[in-house]
Amino acid sequence: MTVVSRRVRFSTKGEVDMVDVTHMVQRAVEESGLKKGIVTVFVPGSTGAVTTIEYEPGLLKDFPRMLEKIAPRGEEYEHHLRWHDWNGHSHCRAALLGPSLTVPFEDGRLQLGTWQQIVFVELDVKPRERELILQLIGE
Amino acid sequence: MTVVSRRVRFSTKGEVDMVDVTHMVQRAVEESGLKKGIVTVFVPGSTGAVTTIEYEPGLLKDFPRMLEKIAPRGEEYEHHLRWHDWNGHSHCRAALLGPSLTVPFEDGRLQLGTWQQIVFVELDVKPRERELILQLIGE
Amino acid sequence: MTVVSRRVRFSTKGEVDMVDVTHMVQRAVEESGLKKGIVTVFVPGSTGAVTTIEYEPGLLKDFPRMLEKIAPRGEEYEHHLRWHDWNGHSHCRAALLGPSLTVPFEDGRLQLGTWQQIVFVELDVKPRERELILQLIGE
Repeated sequence: MTVVSRRVRFSTKGEVDMVDVTHMVQRAVEESGLKKGIVTVFVPGSTGAVTTIEYEPGLLKDFPRMLEKIAPRGEEYEHHLRWHDWNGHSHCRAALLGPSLTVPFEDGRLQLGTWQQIVFVELDVKPRERELILQLIGE
Repeated sequence: MTVVSRRVRFSTKGEVDMVDVTHMVQRAVEESGLKKGIVTVFVPGSTGAVTTIEYEPGLLKDFPRMLEKIAPRGEEYEHHLRWHDWNGHSHCRAALLGPSLTVPFEDGRLQLGTWQQIVFVELDVKPRERELILQLIGE
Repeated sequence: MTVVSRRVRFSTKGEVDMVDVTHMVQRAVEESGLKKGIVTVFVPGSTGAVTTIEYEPGLLKDFPRMLEKIAPRGEEYEHHLRWHDWNGHSHCRAALLGPSLTVPFEDGRLQLGTWQQIVFVELDVKPRERELILQLIGE
């Protein structure tokens, strides 16, 4: 049993951009040499989130529309009034979705469903450079 | 320290069926022989989710009602328009709730609260055969 | 590789109190002697949740306001009708946010973002004594 730490970096295109990071996580598993275990995918920040979804163009519109209903952009947020960065809704959405996801792997392969991808959700109001921490534990 | 992989299978009765899987997860812990560690409960699919709740008849109605408000069945979804399987809301709800849950165990017992059960939430629009991956790490 | 179990206790001030527990989790990592691994922060109960957020006064108002929209206090809940403890919305919010969070650490430090804190969210309708389970796995 051992722990392997990896970081992956990528750019996002702006608010509610959803980035399929499955291949990055799968590659980290392969390069670790571990065959069986778990990988925790963690967002070190408070305006992004990680989850899984069927990565197809329809849902890339539907999921953001749901987030807009839950925490609308145009409303007043106390965070806005204090910090003037106009991303109070981004923080609320990120805390709701959560920053961590843990995925099992076996035989060196992520055990995802056929139509299930790991996605980073950009919730901030502008394009950003992002980093995910991948913490693998296994043997 | 070691990793033990288990899979459990069960049927769901249709949309927003909530299945108490606590005893399946507890049994996996017992059969693993591990005394102390964590178990990651993972849904390999994009129309189901896992969380914890007090498993009593009232909440089995309240929780689906909340989901219906967040991502209503009757609305138009781009996913519907493309794939015609009418479960765009199922995917949105699943990505929001998340596919992974990690629960600690000690002395071979899940460390849940007295009124807290582990539930699989069927979010797809029909009864299905489901499988959960249980990845145990411990000693 | 080893597993270290810790529990931390604190009081909450009432409904939607958000408690910054980052320092408690960081201290548990330091006292464990582990340098690299993951810590699972788990809520053993069904009316509280754990996530991360930028812990500043504005968001401590904005996040509860979002929860109030998702699962309003004043509505009828089946849970109320059966148990008369008037916290059906608390249970729904807790199951949505989730009871577990897994955070990586390296060199004995939690790998959080600069503006990211670990928070316990009190969702019950009164002040409570709370306990979190911290399960550390690493080397």
